[in-house]
Amino acid sequence: MTERPKTPLLDRVSLPSDLKSLSDDQLEQLADELRSETISAVSVTGGHLGAGLGVVELTVALHAVFDAPRDKIIWDVGHQCYPHKILTGRRDRIRTLRMGGGLAGFTKRAESPYDPFGAGHSSTSISAALGFAMARELGGDPGDAVAVIGDGAMSAGMAYEALNNAGHEGKRLFVILNDNEMSIAPPVGAMSAYLTRLYAGGPFQELKAVAKGAVGMLPEALQEGARRARDMLKGMAVGGTMFEELGFSYIGPVDGHDMAQLLPLLRTVRARADGPVLIHVVTKKGKGYAPAESAADRGHATGKFDMVTGVQAKAKSNAPSYTSVFAKALIDEGGRDDRILAVTAAMPDGTGLKQFAQRFPRRCFDVGIAEQHAVTFCAGLAAGGMKPFCAIYSTFLQRGYDQVVHDVAVQGLPVRFAIDRAGLVGQDGPTHSGAYDIAFLANLPGFVVMAAADEAELVHMVATAAAHDSGPIAFRFPRGEGTGVEMPERGQVLPIGKGRMIAEGKGVAILSFGTRLSEVMTAREALMARGITPTVADARFAKPLDRDLILSLARDHDALITIEEGAVGGFGSHVAQLLADEGVFDHGLRFRSMVLPDAFVDHDAPRAMYDTSALNAQHIEEKVLSVLGIDDLQARRGDRA
Amino acid sequence: MTERPKTPLLDRVSLPSDLKSLSDDQLEQLADELRSETISAVSVTGGHLGAGLGVVELTVALHAVFDAPRDKIIWDVGHQCYPHKILTGRRDRIRTLRMGGGLAGFTKRAESPYDPFGAGHSSTSISAALGFAMARELGGDPGDAVAVIGDGAMSAGMAYEALNNAGHEGKRLFVILNDNEMSIAPPVGAMSAYLTRLYAGGPFQELKAVAKGAVGMLPEALQEGARRARDMLKGMAVGGTMFEELGFSYIGPVDGHDMAQLLPLLRTVRARADGPVLIHVVTKKGKGYAPAESAADRGHATGKFDMVTGVQAKAKSNAPSYTSVFAKALIDEGGRDDRILAVTAAMPDGTGLKQFAQRFPRRCFDVGIAEQHAVTFCAGLAAGGMKPFCAIYSTFLQRGYDQVVHDVAVQGLPVRFAIDRAGLVGQDGPTHSGAYDIAFLANLPGFVVMAAADEAELVHMVATAAAHDSGPIAFRFPRGEGTGVEMPERGQVLPIGKGRMIAEGKGVAILSFGTRLSEVMTAREALMARGITPTVADARFAKPLDRDLILSLARDHDALITIEEGAVGGFGSHVAQLLADEGVFDHGLRFRSMVLPDAFVDHDAPRAMYDTSALNAQHIEEKVLSVLGIDDLQARRGDRA
Repeated sequence: MTERPKTPLLDRVSLPSDLKSLSDDQLEQLADELRSETISAVSVTGGHLGAGLGVVELTVALHAVFDAPRDKIIWDVGHQCYPHKILTGRRDRIRTLRMGGGLAGFTKRAESPYDPFGAGHSSTSISAALGFAMARELGGDPGDAVAVIGDGAMSAGMAYEALNNAGHEGKRLFVILNDNEMSIAPPVGAMSAYLTRLYAGGPFQELKAVAKGAVGMLPEALQEGARRARDMLKGMAVGGTMFEELGFSYIGPVDGHDMAQLLPLLRTVRARADGPVLIHVVTKKGKGYAPAESAADRGHATGKFDMVTGVQAKAKSNAPSYTSVFAKALIDEGGRDDRILAVTAAMPDGTGLKQFAQRFPRRCFDVGIAEQHAVTFCAGLAAGGMKPFCAIYSTFLQRGYDQVVHDVAVQGLPVRFAIDRAGLVGQDGPTHSGAYDIAFLANLPGFVVMAAADEAELVHMVATAAAHDSGPIAFRFPRGEGTGVEMPERGQVLPIGKGRMIAEGKGVAILSFGTRLSEVMTAREALMARGITPTVADARFAKPLDRDLILSLARDHDALITIEEGAVGGFGSHVAQLLADEGVFDHGLRFRSMVLPDAFVDHDAPRAMYDTSALNAQHIEEKVLSVLGIDDLQARRGDRA
Repeated sequence: MTERPKTPLLDRVSLPSDLKSLSDDQLEQLADELRSETISAVSVTGGHLGAGLGVVELTVALHAVFDAPRDKIIWDVGHQCYPHKILTGRRDRIRTLRMGGGLAGFTKRAESPYDPFGAGHSSTSISAALGFAMARELGGDPGDAVAVIGDGAMSAGMAYEALNNAGHEGKRLFVILNDNEMSIAPPVGAMSAYLTRLYAGGPFQELKAVAKGAVGMLPEALQEGARRARDMLKGMAVGGTMFEELGFSYIGPVDGHDMAQLLPLLRTVRARADGPVLIHVVTKKGKGYAPAESAADRGHATGKFDMVTGVQAKAKSNAPSYTSVFAKALIDEGGRDDRILAVTAAMPDGTGLKQFAQRFPRRCFDVGIAEQHAVTFCAGLAAGGMKPFCAIYSTFLQRGYDQVVHDVAVQGLPVRFAIDRAGLVGQDGPTHSGAYDIAFLANLPGFVVMAAADEAELVHMVATAAAHDSGPIAFRFPRGEGTGVEMPERGQVLPIGKGRMIAEGKGVAILSFGTRLSEVMTAREALMARGITPTVADARFAKPLDRDLILSLARDHDALITIEEGAVGGFGSHVAQLLADEGVFDHGLRFRSMVLPDAFVDHDAPRAMYDTSALNAQHIEEKVLSVLGIDDLQARRGDRA
C-alpha cells in the first residue's frame, strides 16, 4: 500500500452542506482531491473504479448545486457512487467497501439518507426519480429528483418507459445522461450510435444546446452559442433530439470534467426548470488515472491494486472459474454445430461469451442491457431453427421473466439458458443474489432445469443443453472457481431427469442440487468420524425430478435432506410435493429441505454469506445430527466416550 | 343470430396463396367480405373485435404481397388476428374462437404454420421477428420477418430494446407500426403524442415519406410527394424521425384502410429493402362497424352481440366482479387517506382503476404498457412517502419481476400490489394464466402475500394493504364474479400472518389459500353426507404463514390438504417447508398440496379449466377420500349400505 494522498480541502468536508461555502475554484480542487481519495480507497478494497472516476466532477457539482438529502440524487446502477459516498459522511468507512460489515458497493437506502434509492441493477433511476417527483407534486417528500444514468443503461427498455412517462407527466425532473461511451462492454445498439452522433463534430468548448426549450434557461453568455448551434443544426435537418420528442428539454452535450461548464449549467437549470430536463454530459470512464483509462474496460471493476503502477494483486487460482469452463464448453459445442448461437445482454466478459464471439463473430449477439428482448430474440432464433444459448446471470434473468414464461415456455421453444452467478455472489450483495431462478423456472411446464455440482458437470450440461431440441432447458452455476475436479475430454449428454449416486451410506440420505455437493461431502467425512455414513446423491435436475432416485432414497433411509443454493419454492419444494403426492409422508419420513434463508444476505465473502445462510458443511452436519435426533452435545460426548 | 353475410370472393380463398391470382380491385372487395365475416363470427363468439376490424385491409395486403408461411408475419399481442385466421385455413373453425377446444383468441404456433410466433402479451413481435431475421441470415428458416405492432405496444420498453438492437444489426426486417391511437385505453405517454405529431397536419392522400433512406424505395409516383413533404419538414427543423435515429428507414404515415396505398407500398419495400424498415400505418380501431367505432374502447373486447344493433347479450350477474369490488374498496380507502395513489400499466378499465381516476384524477397514473417502470415508479412514490397501489394482472406482473425483487423487496418499500386475474382466466388461455405469482412473491424476504377467499375478504385486504407501511404487500384475486357473500360496511385491517377457522371438523383438515374456498365448502357438504367432516380454514396469508394455525391443524388431524390457484412452489410449498422444519413429517402426516397442474391449460370456460386442473369440489372430495385411504368405490358402497 502506498501513502494516502494529501487532501486538505476534502478533509474539511464531512457532509455536502460543507460544499456551499466553497468557491468554484475550490470545488475544482476538491474534485481533484476526491479523485485521489477514490483511487486510494479502491486500491485497498478493489471494486468499481472506472465509473466513479468518470463522475468525480459531476458528483462535486451536483452536491454543490443541489441540496441532498432534501433533493434526491439517484445514481443509476450505483457503480459510480464511491465519490458520492466519500462526500456524504462515509469517508471514514470508504476503505471497507464491499467487505463484510463494510459499506455496500452500490447505493443503499439503509446505509445513508443521502442514498434515497438504492441500486445494483441498471436503468431504474428515472422511474424512481419520477416517483419522487410525483410524490413531491402530491405533497410527499419535497425536494428535487435527479437521476444520473449512463449511456449503457439507456439501452434498457425500462429507461425508455420511464422517459416516455416522465415526458407525458411534464413535471420538473432532472435526468443527467452520463455518456461515457462505455458501460461495461463496448457500447452496442442504435441508441449508442445516436448519442455519438449527437456530440460528434462539435468541440465541447462551445456548449451546444439544441433544445429550443432549454436555451432560455441557460446563462446568458451561453445562449448565443446555443442559438448558433441550433441554427446550424436546423440547416442540417437533424433538428430536435429524440429526448425532446419524448417531452424533455435537452441540454448538451457538456464536458463532464469541466467544472466551469457544469456548475453554471446546473445552477441555471435548477433555478429555472419547470418540466423534465435531460442534461447530456460526456465523461471519460477511468478519468484521471492512467491505468484505468488505458484498460480495455476502463477499470470497470478491479481487485486491489498498487496505486502507482496499477498492477492488481492476483488472487491465487487453483481451479478454472465456472464462467471460463462454460465459455470453453460452448465453443467446443459451437465448433461441432453451427446452429449454436450465443446471446448476452451487455455482459460479454462476465458471461465468458467474449471468447465465443472471438471464435464465431457472426454467431454471438450482444443486445445491450435488454434482457427482455434478449430472451424473446432467442425464442425467435429458436423458432427459426437455431440453437440459441441465452447467457444471463440469475439475478438479471428476473428482468426477462415474462418473456421466459410467455415466449419460451408457453411455446415450448428450445432456448438454452446458461445461468451464471446462481446462488450467493459475494461482494455485490443482495441485489445480485441468484436466489430465485430455481423457483421461477422449475414451475414452468416443459422446462428442464439443471444445476452443475462442479465444473465437469457444467461441461456435461452444456452438451446436454446443446442436444436438447424438444423444449426449453436451463443450467445454473455459481460465481467463482470450480472444485478442481478432473475435466472430461468432451461433454457427455446427460439423460434428462436422472440424478446420480455419489456415495452409498445408510440411515440418512442427502440429495444435493448444485455446488453445495462439495460441502455435503465435507460434512459426510466429519459424520463418518462419528459413525454416521450418509448416502449422498446429486440430483442434477430440479425438473424433471428423478422420481425413482428420490423415492428409493426415501424408502431406504430414515431421513432425507435436500440442499440447494436457492430460496424456498425451488428444488426442495418440488421434492416435497412429490413425496406428499406419493404418500411418503403418510407413515413418516424425516424430511428436511436446506434452502437460502428468508432474508437478504448482506455482501461479504461468498463463504461467509453461506455461513450466514447456514448452508456450509458444518450446518449440513448439524442438520443431519438434528434430524437423527442426536444433538451436537450428545454427539460430542459420544465422540469422547 | 342473424344470417351469415354473402362472401363470394372469400369463399374461394382457403389459403393465402389463393390471393396471388386476385386483382387489386378484387383484393379490395375481399377485404370488405373479410370484414363482414369477422363481424359475423365475433357476434357468435364474442372476443376482440375492434383490433381485427382495424387491420382487415392490412391483413389482406400482407398476405397478398408476402408469402406466408415462408415469410413470417408476426402479429403483436394477437388481438387483431381473427381476419388473419380466416385467411389462413381456419375459417371453418372461426366461430369456435376462444371456446373450449376451439381456436385460440391469439396467434398460436401449435394451431397453424401461419402463426410463426404466438402472442398474448404485448410488444414481443419485434424481438421475435429479429430472431427470425437473424436465423435466416445464418442459414436457418428462410423468408422475410414482418412484425405488426400497435402504437400502444410501442410504449413498452421491450419494443424499444428490440428496435435498438434491430437498428444496430441492420438486417432486412419489416416492422409495421399499426397506429390506431387506441390500444385498449386511450393512449398515454410521450411516444403516443410523438406519433400523433408525425401525422398531424398532413392529409393521407399525399403520402409523406420523411425518411431520406426510404424515398428511393417508393413507387415513383409517390416519390415526388415524399420529397416535398421532407423539404417542408426540413424548414420546420423537425427532421428525421425517432425511428430513423434508431437505424430504421421510416415510411409513412400511410392510410391503413386504403388498399391503393398499401399494396404498392408493401410491394415496393418487399422488392427493395436491404435493412430494417418501419412502415407507419394509420388505422381506425373498429373500422367499418358503427357500434364498435362509436364504443368508448372501440370494441376492444366484446361479448356475443346482435350483428345489426351491436347490442351485447348480457351475462346474468349475481354478484359483483372482484375487479369492481377492488375498485370500490380502493376509492373508499383513498377517500380517507390522500396519500393513497393508484398506478396501472395501460389497463385502467381491466383493473377498475378508471373509477379511482374519475374520483381522484391527480392520484391515478396510467404509465402505458410499461410494467417494469410501473413497479419502480411505485417504489419511488413509496420512498417519497406515498402509499401506491400497483394494480397489475398476475400474468403481466411477470414483466416487472426484477423490479419487484430489486427495487421493492430488497429495499423493503411499502408498495401495495393489487394482483387481479390470479389463477386461471378462461378464454384468454395459458398466456394469461395467473399461475406463478404466489411462488415468485412468497419467497421474497419481507413480502406479505395475501389471497382473498371471497369479495368481502378482498375489501379487508385492501384495507390491510392500505394500513401496512412497514414493507411490500400483495393481495391476489381472480377474474370474474364474487360468491355473493354479504359485504362489509368498511374494510377491516387483518392481523398480518393470521388465518381464520372456517369450519371445525375432524380427521382431515383443508387449508385453503384464495377463492377455492367455496369449492372446498361444497366438497365438505358432500363429504359430510358420507360421514366425513373436514376442518376447513382459510390461510389468508401465504407469507408470513400462520404457524400456529398450520401446526395445530397438523397436530389435531390425521391429514392436511392445502389448496391454491397457483403452480407448485407457492403456498403449499411454504407449508411443506414449515412442516418439514418443525419435524411434523417425522412421525407421519398425510399431507397433500393441491396446486395447478404442471401443464399449460388451454383456453376454456374457467370452471372447465379448473376441472382440467383437478381443483374443483369433486377433486377436493376425491383427494380427501384418497388421503384417508377410502377409495371412491368403497365410499359409494358405504353410502348404499
